[in-house]
Amino acid sequence: MQKPSSSLRLVIVGGVAAGASAAARARRLSESASIILLERGPDVSFANCGLPYYVGGEIAQRAALAVQTPQTLKALLNLDVRTSTEAVAIDRPGKRVQVRSLGSGTTEWLPYDNLLLAPGAVPLRPALPGIDDARIFTLRSLQDMDRIKAAAVEAKRVAVIGAGFIGLEMAEQFVRLGKQVTLVELLDQVLPPLDKPMTLFIEDELRRHGIDLILGDGIESFDCGAALTCRLKSARRIEADLVVLSIGVRPDSALARDAGLALGPRGHIRVNEFMQTSDPDIYAAGDAIESNDLVTGDPASVPLGGPANRQGRLVADHIFAPTLAKPWPGLLGTAIVRVFDVSAGLTGWSEKRLRAAGRPYRTITVNDSQHAGYFPGAKPIILKLLWDPETGRVLGAQAAGLAGVDKRLDVLATALAGKLTIDDLAQLELAYAPPFGAAKDIVNLAGFAACNTRDGLVTPVETLQDDPNVQILDVRPPALVQSHPLPRPATANIPLAALRLRLGELDRSRPVVTVCALGKTAYFAARILAQNGFQVSCLTGGIRAHWDPRSPAKLPTP
Amino acid sequence: MQKPSSSLRLVIVGGVAAGASAAARARRLSESASIILLERGPDVSFANCGLPYYVGGEIAQRAALAVQTPQTLKALLNLDVRTSTEAVAIDRPGKRVQVRSLGSGTTEWLPYDNLLLAPGAVPLRPALPGIDDARIFTLRSLQDMDRIKAAAVEAKRVAVIGAGFIGLEMAEQFVRLGKQVTLVELLDQVLPPLDKPMTLFIEDELRRHGIDLILGDGIESFDCGAALTCRLKSARRIEADLVVLSIGVRPDSALARDAGLALGPRGHIRVNEFMQTSDPDIYAAGDAIESNDLVTGDPASVPLGGPANRQGRLVADHIFAPTLAKPWPGLLGTAIVRVFDVSAGLTGWSEKRLRAAGRPYRTITVNDSQHAGYFPGAKPIILKLLWDPETGRVLGAQAAGLAGVDKRLDVLATALAGKLTIDDLAQLELAYAPPFGAAKDIVNLAGFAACNTRDGLVTPVETLQDDPNVQILDVRPPALVQSHPLPRPATANIPLAALRLRLGELDRSRPVVTVCALGKTAYFAARILAQNGFQVSCLTGGIRAHWDPRSPAKLPTP
Repeated sequence: MQKPSSSLRLVIVGGVAAGASAAARARRLSESASIILLERGPDVSFANCGLPYYVGGEIAQRAALAVQTPQTLKALLNLDVRTSTEAVAIDRPGKRVQVRSLGSGTTEWLPYDNLLLAPGAVPLRPALPGIDDARIFTLRSLQDMDRIKAAAVEAKRVAVIGAGFIGLEMAEQFVRLGKQVTLVELLDQVLPPLDKPMTLFIEDELRRHGIDLILGDGIESFDCGAALTCRLKSARRIEADLVVLSIGVRPDSALARDAGLALGPRGHIRVNEFMQTSDPDIYAAGDAIESNDLVTGDPASVPLGGPANRQGRLVADHIFAPTLAKPWPGLLGTAIVRVFDVSAGLTGWSEKRLRAAGRPYRTITVNDSQHAGYFPGAKPIILKLLWDPETGRVLGAQAAGLAGVDKRLDVLATALAGKLTIDDLAQLELAYAPPFGAAKDIVNLAGFAACNTRDGLVTPVETLQDDPNVQILDVRPPALVQSHPLPRPATANIPLAALRLRLGELDRSRPVVTVCALGKTAYFAARILAQNGFQVSCLTGGIRAHWDPRSPAKLPTP
Repeated sequence: MQKPSSSLRLVIVGGVAAGASAAARARRLSESASIILLERGPDVSFANCGLPYYVGGEIAQRAALAVQTPQTLKALLNLDVRTSTEAVAIDRPGKRVQVRSLGSGTTEWLPYDNLLLAPGAVPLRPALPGIDDARIFTLRSLQDMDRIKAAAVEAKRVAVIGAGFIGLEMAEQFVRLGKQVTLVELLDQVLPPLDKPMTLFIEDELRRHGIDLILGDGIESFDCGAALTCRLKSARRIEADLVVLSIGVRPDSALARDAGLALGPRGHIRVNEFMQTSDPDIYAAGDAIESNDLVTGDPASVPLGGPANRQGRLVADHIFAPTLAKPWPGLLGTAIVRVFDVSAGLTGWSEKRLRAAGRPYRTITVNDSQHAGYFPGAKPIILKLLWDPETGRVLGAQAAGLAGVDKRLDVLATALAGKLTIDDLAQLELAYAPPFGAAKDIVNLAGFAACNTRDGLVTPVETLQDDPNVQILDVRPPALVQSHPLPRPATANIPLAALRLRLGELDRSRPVVTVCALGKTAYFAARILAQNGFQVSCLTGGIRAHWDPRSPAKLPTP
């Protein structure tokens, strides 16, 4: 039997996103509960997603990141906040947790009715030769941030190892500070959660800003002389005055493991749909947990602030108002990054994940502007959609571009939550006025293109095959054909407006791939050819998917 | 039996959004069909939503609005486009439509297998005294636009009658041109589809830009001397050199009516879920039709470009690929307008519509920033949510603010399409990085607040009652209390951080309403009071809902 909430004792380990959210919601549900918030670091409830931006000065005031203190949380929420305090052991039968003050070294046992583990995740710092050099940093806390910012004052050359979300944000901010930046990524692409074609705009943008981008290479060791030299697996050497390691995180789950709680294969704390661990009196939330994927129900972990906050809140609901608590719907992994003028992100499953999992899928890529092309300020955006071939249900989406990326990701995350299909996307009634959208938004276009693919109206291909039997029909206007030649010369260059009259230039007995800049005109051409007896497919997304989004892809008026 | 599509004759009446979309999709589905596109005006497929922006010069090139011509549509889509040609009669038994050339006056009968009526809507121009003065304009075509732009060169004083979407866009553009603008609206609010509290930001923005805004007054007559004088119902007189009437539209459905097709009560052409009229060989799409509401299934008409385009496309599907055609899901009426720096819009049902229809609903209003408050450029946004009290299903939403309004409307339109509930909104996993969103997006906050209301954790009120028995507790910081006094003095001003210590200042036997700037702190206070035995409610949306969004609503660090 649960104790009445009037006297319930909740102890929370970890005072940032999930922990602080749980504490605040708990207090709103129970004025009389005892709520103790333990934090190993000196700060609670700080804005950890903002750390890179203070390093680069885009966020000017450090105080903007650390609004709450133990004192304000006492005053506002009547919380017992203990910073610089580490939870070192859990006595599950005795329902108490042992804590140690990092200042005094003293320990004590705190009794709990419910315990929440919200320890977060630790940046990976592999035991490479030279790794302990003081010029090599990871970024998790405000103190990490302060150290990097201080070291950056004198540094001229910065190496960022790992081109995930944080690595990209740090690289951008170091350029902002005028540093000479090298960005190293082990995979052959930036932004590992995305499919490579959708990351090319970010690559271009990094290089355009003078970043030396090294893909497909990893850090092997550091030579720590007067200069710090990063030795890569390729034997390439990079000299740097400051190194930031952003190669991933691991769940900070030692306390849970030592207490015998069930962990997932990569050390995450396993939880049910109410965030209960294998001990129902002990909850876990945030970056350290493994819950389930919203689309497939498979185990999943997403170390991001949004889910952490909402998971913490759900824990408080389940403890203090169990009849009101709604089960966790699962994780999508929605994420976005801004790199100078370009942004990119994803929601749900990527093609590489689907392929690795052996799940059936189909995919298309579409190009458009973020709002009506006739309104000033129209900027390119590209959207990739993945769906289930049997049901048409959307499985995931990726977007990149110069504007409107966040909006489309949010629409598609909502579509995933609603289990919408490609037919539903085609019919979404989104807000249209010229400054904001288009009569057919790119999300509608993606729905149209996906339905056309499913219905056999078009056969998309993702690359231009080398097969010499395949005829490549380039329907771009001549100026664009000249300025942006295809990787393989086209069999014929026929603008769409002339295609019906010039079908004789193509061999009806050999397959054709139609190509244009954005994918739309090539689709129109493919429809003409298909109805004239050709075996035809169409380069999805056009050739822009492989080039700088600023290139003159748009067809002039025909 | 339908004829094989190889020889099918499709005649389309109306060549703008729905008609042009249908023609283009039809050609992609059938290279061999005969497709005739009739347009009464001289232009086809022009960007009618862009017209106000060319008048004001924000769109600089007229050609940007009129990309296609009969010649380009012939070349690209092999369409037989006949502009300046009016359809005057339909012979349904004979399956032919009579057309008249407006140039030569000659008529002919065109046979059809399928006919699509996409005639659009006509701006209302009531038979008021003086209405035929040449200085009084409505805006539908490129020629209307040209005439207004020409007249605006000399005009100093402009009156815009009607403060709906087009009226607001025109008023903004006339200010851009340096005109002295009066905007008159019969209702006591701008943007009639929205609930009044959500339109106050637009009102402020109009006045801030020097527009003389007259609400609750209508046009009665015009005195047409050397000066043009608008006489209002209130007897107020406005002198103007140019008047734009934007008081609504009526469906251009005379042809359908004369042909005996079923019309709705306001003259719209009734269609089924495949856009078929009461004659299954005759389709209708766009501004002239009545289809159904997505939320309730009731008859609905929405004269906007997005639905028109997609309806036209669906017509072509149903004619040329009937097995692929998916039924129309219904209309949401998603719409948005930009007025200088503020934007506002809605999707689904408003409170006034729900109230008028006698449908049960509940509602809350929340305030936040468009992205993390700690990141530079955070700007206020306000969101109103309506939901079904029994199922929790979202019924509608409205948003206004300085940034991010379009994104939230699109997320909520997608939520409506997915029949999501307030619990689903609370758990949406939207894209968060500091430049784009927040760990708890305002859509999540709206979900939280709605669930809290449903679950009895808070009782929202929309206005401060005059009842002297009710205690008003103002929890804003003292500086804000001084600078922005409440309409009725508070019983007590107690900042949240001091509330637990100062509960004695309130009378436990009398009800309390808590008030703050944004609604959030007042909710926190209400939770403390409720748990201490008070009967408490909370002003939803805070007092900012009644003031300029630029006012210093945000609580400084406590």
